[in-house]
Amino acid sequence: MATTLQRESLAVAPVKLERLLSMKGGNGEASYVKNSQAQARHARSMLHLLEATLDAVPLPEGDEHAFTVADLGCFCGNNTLFMVDVIVRHIAKRYELSGREAPEFQAFFSDLPSNDFNVLFQLLPPLTSFDGGSLEQCLAAAGGSRPYYAAGVPGSFYRRLFPERSVDFFYSAFSLHWLSQVPESMTDRRSPAYNKGRVFIHGATEAAARAYGRQFQADLASFLLCRAREVCRGGSMFLVCLRRTSANPADQGGAGVLFGTHFQDACEDLIQEVITNSKTVSVTELLSLPFSFYACVTSCWLVAVMGRREQGLVDAEKRDGFNIPVYAPSLQEFREVVEADGSFAINTLQVVRGGSPLVVSRPDDVEEVGRAMANSCRSVCGVLVEAHLGEEVGDALFARLERRAARWAGELMEQLQLFHIVASLYFREAKWFTNTFS
Amino acid sequence: MATTLQRESLAVAPVKLERLLSMKGGNGEASYVKNSQAQARHARSMLHLLEATLDAVPLPEGDEHAFTVADLGCFCGNNTLFMVDVIVRHIAKRYELSGREAPEFQAFFSDLPSNDFNVLFQLLPPLTSFDGGSLEQCLAAAGGSRPYYAAGVPGSFYRRLFPERSVDFFYSAFSLHWLSQVPESMTDRRSPAYNKGRVFIHGATEAAARAYGRQFQADLASFLLCRAREVCRGGSMFLVCLRRTSANPADQGGAGVLFGTHFQDACEDLIQEVITNSKTVSVTELLSLPFSFYACVTSCWLVAVMGRREQGLVDAEKRDGFNIPVYAPSLQEFREVVEADGSFAINTLQVVRGGSPLVVSRPDDVEEVGRAMANSCRSVCGVLVEAHLGEEVGDALFARLERRAARWAGELMEQLQLFHIVASLYFREAKWFTNTFS
Ligand SMILES: C[S@@+](CC[C@H](N)C(=O)[O-])C[C@H]1O[C@@H](n2cnc3c(N)ncnc32)[C@H](O)[C@@H]1O
Ligand SMILES: C[S@@+](CC[C@H](N)C(=O)[O-])C[C@H]1O[C@@H](n2cnc3c(N)ncnc32)[C@H](O)[C@@H]1O
Repeated sequence: MATTLQRESLAVAPVKLERLLSMKGGNGEASYVKNSQAQARHARSMLHLLEATLDAVPLPEGDEHAFTVADLGCFCGNNTLFMVDVIVRHIAKRYELSGREAPEFQAFFSDLPSNDFNVLFQLLPPLTSFDGGSLEQCLAAAGGSRPYYAAGVPGSFYRRLFPERSVDFFYSAFSLHWLSQVPESMTDRRSPAYNKGRVFIHGATEAAARAYGRQFQADLASFLLCRAREVCRGGSMFLVCLRRTSANPADQGGAGVLFGTHFQDACEDLIQEVITNSKTVSVTELLSLPFSFYACVTSCWLVAVMGRREQGLVDAEKRDGFNIPVYAPSLQEFREVVEADGSFAINTLQVVRGGSPLVVSRPDDVEEVGRAMANSCRSVCGVLVEAHLGEEVGDALFARLERRAARWAGELMEQLQLFHIVASLYFREAKWFTNTFS
Repeated sequence: MATTLQRESLAVAPVKLERLLSMKGGNGEASYVKNSQAQARHARSMLHLLEATLDAVPLPEGDEHAFTVADLGCFCGNNTLFMVDVIVRHIAKRYELSGREAPEFQAFFSDLPSNDFNVLFQLLPPLTSFDGGSLEQCLAAAGGSRPYYAAGVPGSFYRRLFPERSVDFFYSAFSLHWLSQVPESMTDRRSPAYNKGRVFIHGATEAAARAYGRQFQADLASFLLCRAREVCRGGSMFLVCLRRTSANPADQGGAGVLFGTHFQDACEDLIQEVITNSKTVSVTELLSLPFSFYACVTSCWLVAVMGRREQGLVDAEKRDGFNIPVYAPSLQEFREVVEADGSFAINTLQVVRGGSPLVVSRPDDVEEVGRAMANSCRSVCGVLVEAHLGEEVGDALFARLERRAARWAGELMEQLQLFHIVASLYFREAKWFTNTFS
């Protein structure tokens, strides 16, 4: 049996995560669109930091080059349109205040190829017509239009996406805590990092947590390396990702509450239920039957129980082969990677309290809290869960999560608090010149 | 009744064509993917002209600017990937032959927002890794990878799509004969251009044909105006669209055979069938009934026939409100618009015989020819037909077309020959400088 299962999880592993990963599409209860109000709120609460970053961007001289913005991990909802609009209008305003003619703007919306770009493209407002009238007039008049050329870029931000020196400003929100992959050691039964009994590193062994940490560091380093090639001279980045408070990577804070604890326990429920679900026969029924029947029933029962173990909703080893590829770094960890890379200087690097990711209207309605928790969790990791375990198991799993979350609603509303790292970085031209020309 | 119908066609008209138009998606029998082998063949037969154009492109100096290619009206199939690959590799080769270091490449895939960009993005091969090894080695090694950064741009090519001076080479194949809209006069019953009795301008009145002609000229002029802003100094364009041989715009040649004649007649079938389908009663049945019954039946029958006219599969006026927005210009017409605009100089402007658009393995199998004709027609205008008349009517219509085409298979294989205009244009910098700086 172990070999069958091993083969099964091996069959899942080579499917590259980036072909699979996406937030839950559509606009159902558990869709990301319906559950990303929290991100929208968090992003808005950081607008002053974003604007401060934008204020420090040296305005490129009015040559023929359009001011270029890229949102990395943009998803296909309204959040990205809102933020890109804010960025473009802020820069346009600065040109205007400085009495200089603004360049044109171009925005790249980038996400994995599994993102629903068709939906995003349908949401794009029509291009602002700049014919006649000052930029100021056009921008003011054009509430329902976009003052930039738009393009979609499919690909992982852990690799190159744009030509050299072609992007003035990178924005990326709530995406960099997604790893490029689950470290192989975590699903290798012979490795000390094998994440037995869990689907996330919250509360995992030190070896498992360290494997995740190394993956995060390697991923962020790749990200910086690529962006350093792509960013224009004088360009900068505004990055937001989950952050943990503890020095211990196995204590993932809010992310731990979201993808560990109850979610973890709900997975365990499905494994346990496999056995307790097996059909039982009452004592009086049993006593009224002849002996030969007992022998027969007992063996059938044994077969049934053993059989069910193999066909159960979730098998323990199958669960162990599944891990949510999210890692909330500490501020220090993030800083170290940025400094080790050295291409970007830190303008600000700080922690912002995001609050709860749960979208609830009545925080003391335990059922609503349960539902919100299940939807919130499913909106970001539902696609992965279903790819690994099937949709039916997904339904069962999130139903269990909903029940558990309702039971612990009070604690949940208190504990499930997200913190974010907000990094405002600017490109160190000097280093780039040195690297290239010396 | 007229007012009901007028209201109906008015309800369709304001839906902007560009939100609606797309080639048939998926990969069914009548999908564009399955029916675009002809385009693929035609495009390949013009490769020497494309390469000659590419040979004349002045290679931008190796500054930091990536060599940028855009395919306008790219669709979501393999044709665009093939052509962009050819273009990029040809330019890369020229850099190599000239002993200069090639820049990076960026390709924009552009089509209407209704195009299935998700499908296109899934087809994109992974990016070639340029780390280590010469460009030559990388290109040679990288059969299954792409040597360019890719982005999708949703929007109409009759409007601005890119920032100023940002594209080195525009390619557009089999798309510029699609008008931005059906001229309003063609669906206005009071106008002399009202296209009564037809769904295309093949064989239409002079007024209708002229309205289409003017729309084409205005559209092509908008196209050139936008591209003249977007093209880099020294940039050029390679454009391919349908061409008619006759001086008379109401003789649309191959396009006329595809969207007029049998297709036209198939529409007429649906209108006629409305009446002949009405239930009839046999003479002996009628004679055996009392007179009062006759009066009653006669009036019911009249009501039924009149009633059916209103509910028929296709009503004549509904058909008249529908027009295929395609126009095959003459070479002279195309030349005049390019010269009137003046931003682009003509390198070559010539006619290339495309041959038949039908994908058939046995040209003397009349049923196969019928099917090929129905599929070919449906792959390009099926989406519009279904949006206007409903999917059910679409099925009926293309079934009639198939039958008619099978009946005339021999003639069809002879007459249905497409000719294309191939335009190789380069940007006249002088004019641009004059316009801007004087
Ligand atoms: C939580 S959503 C954030 C969406 C949006 N930025 C917002 O603020 O609402 C995370 C997004 O990151 C994307 N993502 C995850 N890993 C990625 C990668 N390696 N490259 C590009 N996008 C990635 C996901 O597909 C998803 O759309
Ligand atoms: C016949 S297909 C050609 C596809 C591809 N170039 C090929 O060679 O197979 C025509 C394409 O032009 C696109 N198209 C039509 N009008 C357009 C417009 N105004 N702007 C952009 N694309 C348009 C259609 O959506 C369609 O994908």
